Amino acid sequence: MGTRRQFILKGATLVAAGAAATVVNAPNVIAQPKYKWKMATSWPPKFHPPGIAAELVAKWVSELTGGRMQIDVYGAGELIPGLENFEAARQGTIEAGHSASYYWAGKEPATQWFTAVPFGLNAQGMQAWQVSGGGQKLWEELYAGFDLVPRRGGSTGVQMGGWFRKKINTTADFKGLKMRIPGLGGKVIAKAGGTVTLLAVGDIFPSLERGVIDATEWVGPLQDERAGFYKATKFYYYPGWHEPGTTAEFFFNKKAYDALPVDIRRALDAATTYADAWNLAEHEKGNAGALERLVNKHGVQLFRFPDGVLRDFRKLSAEVVREEADKSPMAKKVNEHYEKFKKEWLAYSDLSERAYYNMMFV
Amino acid sequence: MGTRRQFILKGATLVAAGAAATVVNAPNVIAQPKYKWKMATSWPPKFHPPGIAAELVAKWVSELTGGRMQIDVYGAGELIPGLENFEAARQGTIEAGHSASYYWAGKEPATQWFTAVPFGLNAQGMQAWQVSGGGQKLWEELYAGFDLVPRRGGSTGVQMGGWFRKKINTTADFKGLKMRIPGLGGKVIAKAGGTVTLLAVGDIFPSLERGVIDATEWVGPLQDERAGFYKATKFYYYPGWHEPGTTAEFFFNKKAYDALPVDIRRALDAATTYADAWNLAEHEKGNAGALERLVNKHGVQLFRFPDGVLRDFRKLSAEVVREEADKSPMAKKVNEHYEKFKKEWLAYSDLSERAYYNMMFV
Repeated sequence: MGTRRQFILKGATLVAAGAAATVVNAPNVIAQPKYKWKMATSWPPKFHPPGIAAELVAKWVSELTGGRMQIDVYGAGELIPGLENFEAARQGTIEAGHSASYYWAGKEPATQWFTAVPFGLNAQGMQAWQVSGGGQKLWEELYAGFDLVPRRGGSTGVQMGGWFRKKINTTADFKGLKMRIPGLGGKVIAKAGGTVTLLAVGDIFPSLERGVIDATEWVGPLQDERAGFYKATKFYYYPGWHEPGTTAEFFFNKKAYDALPVDIRRALDAATTYADAWNLAEHEKGNAGALERLVNKHGVQLFRFPDGVLRDFRKLSAEVVREEADKSPMAKKVNEHYEKFKKEWLAYSDLSERAYYNMMFV
Repeated sequence: MGTRRQFILKGATLVAAGAAATVVNAPNVIAQPKYKWKMATSWPPKFHPPGIAAELVAKWVSELTGGRMQIDVYGAGELIPGLENFEAARQGTIEAGHSASYYWAGKEPATQWFTAVPFGLNAQGMQAWQVSGGGQKLWEELYAGFDLVPRRGGSTGVQMGGWFRKKINTTADFKGLKMRIPGLGGKVIAKAGGTVTLLAVGDIFPSLERGVIDATEWVGPLQDERAGFYKATKFYYYPGWHEPGTTAEFFFNKKAYDALPVDIRRALDAATTYADAWNLAEHEKGNAGALERLVNKHGVQLFRFPDGVLRDFRKLSAEVVREEADKSPMAKKVNEHYEKFKKEWLAYSDLSERAYYNMMFV
């Protein structure tokens, strides 16, 4: 686009310039967007925080480009079903999506490391790995194979372990336990002897309430309060070992992205970075408030998974992650890179963030 | 600026438009910046990461605005001394600065909560408080009194506790201990019976090496390795209770900022958000690598401050923070807001991030 020299002007006073300066105060003359994109999300329309994060990207890109770029955001089902945005953006039917890369594990298992893996990196670790540790570059390499450009799209922070109808004392309590838990976490529960079920979103609460399932994980206090699980059981477990720093994604059709002028590409990059930061802050703030209500208003009882269970799950998770890594050369490559970073980062986090949180409760 | 309708064009092909569209593909015709700002930092020129974060803001703003805005970045001493940027930006001699708000405690004690206070919020907590908890709004209210607009400028993460020539077993070991530690942390050490000294940067290492001081804090492994403290003593303590999530700042002269078109103001906001995220990621990655070298290459021994010491310091820190809060109505207001957020956020963090880090070492 760098060679495009066509200008359409209207209502502008042109001043013949004697000076060498070539300056256009563009934003003040723009009435209609030059670039119009469709972004489809995997969340219900305007679902807070991620659905709002997508809207914020559209708002910021519009402001950053002085209205030259307009992104129309569609929630799940408004334009296409929630999990068809990856393929649609890949084909170019839409230009952008907001989703989570682990939804595409069936296409390529390597995608999972860019959202969350059991006993993997938390929000701060994922951010460090992707932004400064080389993770973003690997992700771009992976998505280039799908004609897509990925960007970080907001973390939920550490998720909660889930809602249980009976107390968990040992790993043996998972034998025969019917739990709704998708993805790699589900594979770990299956290894522990549990029966993993997948349910449509609307079926989770009634199934838990009627005892069709014994347990379900969801997200964290903010989303779990909205889902009303506390009306089915009061036993709420932590931590979310299966999704310790779930990171959403924005993706763009690569041809559409590459065809944009540099400043508009940067506007997309900057707006998604802002939405990424905002999304984590909203979860932190929202989870804190919701937890207070769950405990003090709704009588929810909090339990930490016993050390023995966490130790067993860590071992089983390592097996599951290894099995996933063996499924494709790219998954192997991503896992090796991720694990190397995680090891060094954790050794430092032991002295910094871990020591900080423990100090606050000493 | 919304009414400005003056265009200076050169080398452009104008197409008379029959359509209603008013579109300018601006970035491709801009040869000279319309807005030129000076940003002075409080760090040595191009000092990694914060000095580079400032350079990245300049780069991104240039790209986002298609070259319409240029920011010239000056390190400490290149244009003005490192700690004169706040006053210079306030007066309008320069338009922007990159620094840390606690440097301005002498002007208004309330500034300190926007960088770090002992036993206060860590990086994730500060981000949540400022972005979603109302902290940013309070900060803007505070800085409006100085004709400045503040923006987050990057966190160091939890700092380290410092380098000690002798081991610390109890709080009594701080009696008579000569330590270089500025700010509120220094006031806590003084309350514990220590002798607090302030030294010019170049004097810290030789003073520690010769035993003129018994201890010094600095930042974290990344910066501490560069400073060479491991050559003076091998005893390296954690966690940095005195600065648990030190957050840098960008600030802009308010009149200069308000006079910019919306898209350029957003470019500044977006570029600083990006630099903020990048700065934390660089510290996390850099600290992890440096810690590994300090331990395995330089023979550094790591010690956690004993629980008793941390418990005493938490009590003394609460006293110091209360004394600071009593110094001005704004400090009182900010502290109350911050403490309320911290209490609720910590209760949630106990189940999320704290449980995560402990689970990874169970």
